[in-house]
Amino acid sequence: MDIEMIASLGLASAEKLADRALAAASEAGVNICVAIVDRAGYPLVFKRQPGAPFHSIDIALDKAYTAVSFGLPTAKWDKRLAEGSEMLRHGLMHRERFVSFGGGLPIKHEGQRVGAIGISGGSEAQDVAFCEAALAGL
Amino acid sequence: MDIEMIASLGLASAEKLADRALAAASEAGVNICVAIVDRAGYPLVFKRQPGAPFHSIDIALDKAYTAVSFGLPTAKWDKRLAEGSEMLRHGLMHRERFVSFGGGLPIKHEGQRVGAIGISGGSEAQDVAFCEAALAGL
Amino acid sequence: MDIEMIASLGLASAEKLADRALAAASEAGVNICVAIVDRAGYPLVFKRQPGAPFHSIDIALDKAYTAVSFGLPTAKWDKRLAEGSEMLRHGLMHRERFVSFGGGLPIKHEGQRVGAIGISGGSEAQDVAFCEAALAGL
Amino acid sequence: MDIEMIASLGLASAEKLADRALAAASEAGVNICVAIVDRAGYPLVFKRQPGAPFHSIDIALDKAYTAVSFGLPTAKWDKRLAEGSEMLRHGLMHRERFVSFGGGLPIKHEGQRVGAIGISGGSEAQDVAFCEAALAGL
Repeated sequence: MDIEMIASLGLASAEKLADRALAAASEAGVNICVAIVDRAGYPLVFKRQPGAPFHSIDIALDKAYTAVSFGLPTAKWDKRLAEGSEMLRHGLMHRERFVSFGGGLPIKHEGQRVGAIGISGGSEAQDVAFCEAALAGL
Repeated sequence: MDIEMIASLGLASAEKLADRALAAASEAGVNICVAIVDRAGYPLVFKRQPGAPFHSIDIALDKAYTAVSFGLPTAKWDKRLAEGSEMLRHGLMHRERFVSFGGGLPIKHEGQRVGAIGISGGSEAQDVAFCEAALAGL
Repeated sequence: MDIEMIASLGLASAEKLADRALAAASEAGVNICVAIVDRAGYPLVFKRQPGAPFHSIDIALDKAYTAVSFGLPTAKWDKRLAEGSEMLRHGLMHRERFVSFGGGLPIKHEGQRVGAIGISGGSEAQDVAFCEAALAGL
Repeated sequence: MDIEMIASLGLASAEKLADRALAAASEAGVNICVAIVDRAGYPLVFKRQPGAPFHSIDIALDKAYTAVSFGLPTAKWDKRLAEGSEMLRHGLMHRERFVSFGGGLPIKHEGQRVGAIGISGGSEAQDVAFCEAALAGL
């Protein structure tokens, strides 16, 4: 049988990433939701600071899901889709669980994507910055 | 145990707000749906004037839900999203239960959001005006 | 304006509860999902041990949601619904996000429900035991 | 970073399994759908013989998804749930993408589940037999 060995983020690292994201958001005075998903897109850790928008729950999860699905920061879709037809741009944007704005980053280990982080609750730039702060310590 | 004490609108005030909204709409000769939600976005009072569009039921509920989720009048999203990328603008606009046009207002008490009102059935300007008329008496 | 002051679980306690649940499951050699929701049923913390069934993600969240919604351990519905008609039993069981088997417990503070815990991944008895182990330290 | 190495079925083996399932079904004169999913429950190969029921598309996918989610043949749920409360039995039976009748088998490699096969289109006994025929060659 041919078997693929797939590297996937563990729970302990996921917890650290989520906590670093919350610390960065707290410092900025913003309430966020943060989701850390494994290589398959399933949530390992999700945390929500009381006061974060309710919509941010699913947006954070979907940003992480999209980031690990394509292995691309969600903020990159803006430029990438600008090169395509309007049909492609709108068509992709309306697919279920696809998020094409900033706040989702793939998590890499030795060049391979092993999971992703998704954050929602601040401005687009803040959500991206909190993701980067979380991953900075890796 | 760490406990958050969350201020949330009571039923009696919700009823007064809904009735003031209906009175304003009746005076303008418009049939509307009005939803008053608590701090968690759950409906406290919903009223529909016979003749109001069927679509307005969910629109009113979603306007109130969006207003309390972000603590922002739904009419403000037009300008706020104009500053963001097309991806953010369209991405947010298509999130479930997110409404980015006028007719939803957060309800504040001593500076905190405690609930929201959502109205649908008139023009966008009318829905906003009925919301404001309802809140004017607070 | 009449305002309700609602006591709701904070993030720090939610994290401790989730970690105690995971510790109990690890000791039993079972992979689980655990969800801690606030008084409004929104997730504060969700954690999944790699290897836990995928179905358990939503089951854990729905158990916690049901437990805080009614203020009743989800395991109590078995007996409670046995007293009702078959129509009620089946009707309730098929409502969205309603879970009527064990593994969801309301979290109380000074007699009031302030949130809930939901666990899925073990047998029904194990899920209940892990919930109780998590709450035992309160 | 803590990383889990997850063994997951490759495409070449998935193709062989699907083709063996189709051969077994053709020999029996039955039109089926067969789905082979990886360790994460995502489809690697799906094939449908023209004439297979339309409902079988999702049933085959969900059988495979359920089998890999729990690591249990879907036919085993009948007996397992008979030991539980009516609430657990019915509650689980109605969860999204959960299938508790025969026709889904986990695929194991060196004792670990690496994927699953789901078949729908024949009788329950036939679907199980086609799954077993597909896995027999491993």
